[in-house]
Amino acid sequence: MESMETWKAEAVVLANGEYPTNRLPLEVLSHASYVACCDGGADEYIRRGNLPDAIIGDGDSLSKENRLRCAQLLHRISDQETNDQTKAVHFLLAQGKQRIAIVGATGKREDHTLGNISLLIDYMRAGADVRTYTDYCVIIPCRDGQTFPCRPQQQVSIINFTACGLHAEGLVYPLSDFTNWWQGTLNECIGTEFSIEAKGEYLVIINH
Amino acid sequence: MESMETWKAEAVVLANGEYPTNRLPLEVLSHASYVACCDGGADEYIRRGNLPDAIIGDGDSLSKENRLRCAQLLHRISDQETNDQTKAVHFLLAQGKQRIAIVGATGKREDHTLGNISLLIDYMRAGADVRTYTDYCVIIPCRDGQTFPCRPQQQVSIINFTACGLHAEGLVYPLSDFTNWWQGTLNECIGTEFSIEAKGEYLVIINH
Repeated sequence: MESMETWKAEAVVLANGEYPTNRLPLEVLSHASYVACCDGGADEYIRRGNLPDAIIGDGDSLSKENRLRCAQLLHRISDQETNDQTKAVHFLLAQGKQRIAIVGATGKREDHTLGNISLLIDYMRAGADVRTYTDYCVIIPCRDGQTFPCRPQQQVSIINFTACGLHAEGLVYPLSDFTNWWQGTLNECIGTEFSIEAKGEYLVIINH
Repeated sequence: MESMETWKAEAVVLANGEYPTNRLPLEVLSHASYVACCDGGADEYIRRGNLPDAIIGDGDSLSKENRLRCAQLLHRISDQETNDQTKAVHFLLAQGKQRIAIVGATGKREDHTLGNISLLIDYMRAGADVRTYTDYCVIIPCRDGQTFPCRPQQQVSIINFTACGLHAEGLVYPLSDFTNWWQGTLNECIGTEFSIEAKGEYLVIINH
């Protein structure tokens, strides 16, 4: 069984969305052994007294001071087809860091939020064991059957991508092969774990 | 051609997400001839000196003062299967108000944001001419071919739901039959209008 308590990231990506305010993503960040910041995200991280291990991006949205000060940490990866979050994940995978937590990925532009959330499916396909911690939830890309620890009454959503035969144990409402995002939202845990059976890919969103 | 400038809502739904701060959704709200607030959303609307035409929900998240003061405006619609945004849209459709703008639908919990955005597709199926105005963009559910006014370099995203044969005129990057949300994000307008050809349903996100 996958345990949220025992899952520990080898590296954390601080993306370009809203800087986290909730205790959980902030702890993920403060306990990280390796932090890769997406460009402008580094400014606030540094302002709070930290130094990133790497800064991914073209440096355009970094303050001039930090661009000079952190020049040796800046990894310019030119690829118009991907965003900085994706560049950071691939940068970490290339170093053999597969267990990756992402924070700061949501909360501003909705197109970025949708993009960053849905990219988790692609990172899973690329071999990453990845999840996004927001101020409100943990978002986990999944393939086939999986089991998660939870609290009774904790709110859970299942967003279907390519899965069929979706079925859950330990959730209040039954699953089906959802064709629209909202259909799997606002489910609820019964006990201290829930399991999903399926063939294919989906996202699990567990609210804190 | 559908024009954003000439499109005018018959009614506005103020949902339960973050209260708008951008000029555009605030103007949509202030110019509305009819405003239906989703439960708690009414408190902030009233605090700013307005009176809603209807409040949809069970009143639980309304302040006690407003629950008493607006008792005659409160429409309790009990349906565990839908959220307050959906109840408000159906309430307006039942009154013959089909051109509906939604504000305040995003910006807090990601499960609510994803749910509220994807529900636009269902509202379109139910006959509504509906769009969501956020602080960053307008989100429009579409079926088959459509044309939109725009500014050169304005950022546009296409999120595919059931469409095939996706093709665009007037956008920088070519469309394809996207299977993941991020694939159609961050496109860009060339001139002062763009057209999408397709068979089926998709969302168009036009950043302000």
